[in-house]
Amino acid sequence: MEQKEDLLKEVISHAKEYGFVFPSSEIYDGLAATYDYGQLGSELKNNIKQYWWKSMVQMNDNIVGIDAAIFMHPTTWKASGHVDAFNDPLIDNKDSKKRYRADVLIEEHIEKIRQKINKEVEKAAKKFADAFDEGQFRATNPNVLRNEEKIKEIEDRMRVTLEENDLEGVKKLIEDLEIVCPISGSRNWTEVRQFNLMFSTELGSVAGDAATIYLRPETAQGIFVNFLNVQKSGRMKIPFGIAQIGKAFRNEIVARQFIFRMREFEQMEMQFFVRPGEEMQWYHHWKETRLKWHKALGLGENYYREHDHIKLAHYANAACDIEFDFPMGFKELEGIHSRTDFDLKQHEQFSGKKLQYFDPELNQNYVPYVVETSVGLDRMFLAVMSASYKNEKLEDGSERVVLSLPAQLAPYKVAVMPLTKKDGLPEKATEILNDLRFDFNCQYDEKDSPGKRYRRQDAIGTPYCVMVDHQTLEDHTVTIRDRDTMEQERVAIAELRAKIEEKVSWRNLLAK
Amino acid sequence: MEQKEDLLKEVISHAKEYGFVFPSSEIYDGLAATYDYGQLGSELKNNIKQYWWKSMVQMNDNIVGIDAAIFMHPTTWKASGHVDAFNDPLIDNKDSKKRYRADVLIEEHIEKIRQKINKEVEKAAKKFADAFDEGQFRATNPNVLRNEEKIKEIEDRMRVTLEENDLEGVKKLIEDLEIVCPISGSRNWTEVRQFNLMFSTELGSVAGDAATIYLRPETAQGIFVNFLNVQKSGRMKIPFGIAQIGKAFRNEIVARQFIFRMREFEQMEMQFFVRPGEEMQWYHHWKETRLKWHKALGLGENYYREHDHIKLAHYANAACDIEFDFPMGFKELEGIHSRTDFDLKQHEQFSGKKLQYFDPELNQNYVPYVVETSVGLDRMFLAVMSASYKNEKLEDGSERVVLSLPAQLAPYKVAVMPLTKKDGLPEKATEILNDLRFDFNCQYDEKDSPGKRYRRQDAIGTPYCVMVDHQTLEDHTVTIRDRDTMEQERVAIAELRAKIEEKVSWRNLLAK
Repeated sequence: MEQKEDLLKEVISHAKEYGFVFPSSEIYDGLAATYDYGQLGSELKNNIKQYWWKSMVQMNDNIVGIDAAIFMHPTTWKASGHVDAFNDPLIDNKDSKKRYRADVLIEEHIEKIRQKINKEVEKAAKKFADAFDEGQFRATNPNVLRNEEKIKEIEDRMRVTLEENDLEGVKKLIEDLEIVCPISGSRNWTEVRQFNLMFSTELGSVAGDAATIYLRPETAQGIFVNFLNVQKSGRMKIPFGIAQIGKAFRNEIVARQFIFRMREFEQMEMQFFVRPGEEMQWYHHWKETRLKWHKALGLGENYYREHDHIKLAHYANAACDIEFDFPMGFKELEGIHSRTDFDLKQHEQFSGKKLQYFDPELNQNYVPYVVETSVGLDRMFLAVMSASYKNEKLEDGSERVVLSLPAQLAPYKVAVMPLTKKDGLPEKATEILNDLRFDFNCQYDEKDSPGKRYRRQDAIGTPYCVMVDHQTLEDHTVTIRDRDTMEQERVAIAELRAKIEEKVSWRNLLAK
Repeated sequence: MEQKEDLLKEVISHAKEYGFVFPSSEIYDGLAATYDYGQLGSELKNNIKQYWWKSMVQMNDNIVGIDAAIFMHPTTWKASGHVDAFNDPLIDNKDSKKRYRADVLIEEHIEKIRQKINKEVEKAAKKFADAFDEGQFRATNPNVLRNEEKIKEIEDRMRVTLEENDLEGVKKLIEDLEIVCPISGSRNWTEVRQFNLMFSTELGSVAGDAATIYLRPETAQGIFVNFLNVQKSGRMKIPFGIAQIGKAFRNEIVARQFIFRMREFEQMEMQFFVRPGEEMQWYHHWKETRLKWHKALGLGENYYREHDHIKLAHYANAACDIEFDFPMGFKELEGIHSRTDFDLKQHEQFSGKKLQYFDPELNQNYVPYVVETSVGLDRMFLAVMSASYKNEKLEDGSERVVLSLPAQLAPYKVAVMPLTKKDGLPEKATEILNDLRFDFNCQYDEKDSPGKRYRRQDAIGTPYCVMVDHQTLEDHTVTIRDRDTMEQERVAIAELRAKIEEKVSWRNLLAK
């Protein structure tokens, strides 16, 4: 566990050092939970987007993409339920003046009880050594059992009060648990209030005509309101999907863990419209397809697990997360949700317009059911970065940091280097570079020793280094070095393009 | 002129019919001056982005890209001058309660005088017919001269009052001109006030800790605040550039002309950092380079003209627009600005941090000068759409609507079609499609007659249609039809990929 926390720190530091991710507005000491993608981060992020867009849109006849605006008509969010129900329960401590999420305070209290249990278990493990049976101990020890019981009781009360929006009940629970403010140490709490997570702003300036609008908290609604426009103008037949990549905004109280939870973030979403009654088969289809898509990157199958939701959102009849083993542990990377016809029906009601599809095979009109796949792009970025970051011990005893990114996602595909800065080698290297760069994002690097340059390219994940040496001038060959095997091979310049293409081609990924 | 207004209407209607651009939140009757890109528009927009990114970033050793957040530390906008000076002068009519931009009211008044002059000229032209010399008439006719004089006087007063922020003077001008409200017809005006064009919102919810932040009104500042981070982590040497594509937001009073002026829009900007004193040579370099980039698309050289600014923004020492002949006439498409060291110096002052570069050749520290190139992505989209939209009369007397998009920008590169829906032709077509789609965005189309299908692909700008017929099953050839020449050619399936690549390859554009 400690090792993994170190990993997050190392990734954050590596990301800054090499220009993947910078704290936003850093010269002004940053803006909380906001980050900027640097010169390598923007390339990696673009490549992740391309992988998603190509496989979801380009490879599927029945999926098309859109790019809807962040600003939407405010009634959209009435219909979707976000104006009324997209809230966090907040509570202030009157002494410290600090505000907290009530549910997080309670969860932290539960975590403390859990730690007590773990200590009890560790103590016993030490005492009984080899003779210790943890399962049996947990199932029989009265202290453990009493605390487990306590946790269950608290969790039940929290769930019920939150579900019923019983804010007094939530406060009573905090009081009963004698939870104190971590800053002031006091139990002097305000009432619990609901706080809406949408950012609002004022549109227009015409007197009496200014409208409060919201920054979209999810991209999905941009798809739903355009459902009929796309279906008709694109002559789409059910089942079909609409995909979108775009920014969304949530005024999170607890934004943290680097780019994992930011207030401004990016989603890659696809809404798949199906016949009512056929949604479960499509839900399973997309669950399987999306998991395969992630695994095709080759980061390692054990990084992924599925987590089916027991408690469902009001609009869903099935939901599951694809979780990734982040440095902070397994967390949601993508959600697959069977959203029923909830959203389209709500928009029908609020707009007074029909959002129905005429199914020529059934000879019938209906509001389609929807299966959604929704990836957090920034989370995907963090997943790829942290699973690729490796501190390797080499055979000769030295070490290297290597970012073993999937070749298609690497910011640069090739670094072209002259062995020395003289004898016409830089000119020859530039000539090769200027041909390769039409097809691949390349970097030219002539500073420092070859070894140092190789390490630098390893650290930013460049799959290939091409070295131009004196032999190049004689026989038109270069050496090409593989990031992962560190092996060098001599190839003809004329064969370079095909050699690189073989490794970095999208086809390799898309055909999986 | 009338013809061109029709063109804008036709383009808007075509854009909606085929899924390029929809009014945003249309089921809620739209949101003013906001649009969504549909299934074809999102592809076209992505391709424009790619053209820009590839040529600016991938093809240049000394330019890298970033992707900064929309949310920035609020002090950024103090430093940039946007908090204090990014305003429009507004005035309300007390009777109609309508609000106007004071400068627009005055400009509309000037336009009326100009129309008077034009009528005078037209009248004379009719009267004197062939003997009419417009230049001479304008230079000598007393009515024309008097009105020209009037316009000059009004323009001077407007410029001076606005420059000196003399809002009473602006109001006095409106009163002196006896300008009436177009709605109420009255001259019952309020004072003129400055209205800031930035959208603001509240970040965070911790009591006493909520901060007013702004949606960035330009992407440039995201580059300036990251200047040192990128320079250091990327080991960049001056001269070098940082490029960015991203959304910006301006609360325009008069947002109009389709996607030309929206409140939410997208910019493609590059800031090029140079030695002080060398900015003019780079300014001219980028002016030339950027104009060449636009012309390389082949829309027609006469669509472009340069407009050098006489009046410069406070931060600039040279500025020019690349204007495009939109359906509304020549308007700004891209701006090239020599921004001096204004922005970096302001950020030094407001952040208290040094934003300097050590120049090893000069052995000296300095704040670099900046040359900016800034394209409006949505404007570029409109430029490409409107210049490509053609209503053609064919030799056989029939008509077709064709979108002669540059092949690299076309949403689909190829439409694959079976001649009929039987005899195994759809299966063969699908087989070909499934191979081509790894490399090109393809569409499958089997509905309606071949002629109708060709027209449909013409209307969305698909460069090639591949037709699978009975001969295909025998000799593995297909016909390939060219959108522009409408000619069909028989080629082997094995040669299809190279044939298409030859036309749609980015290399063709980037090498220009």
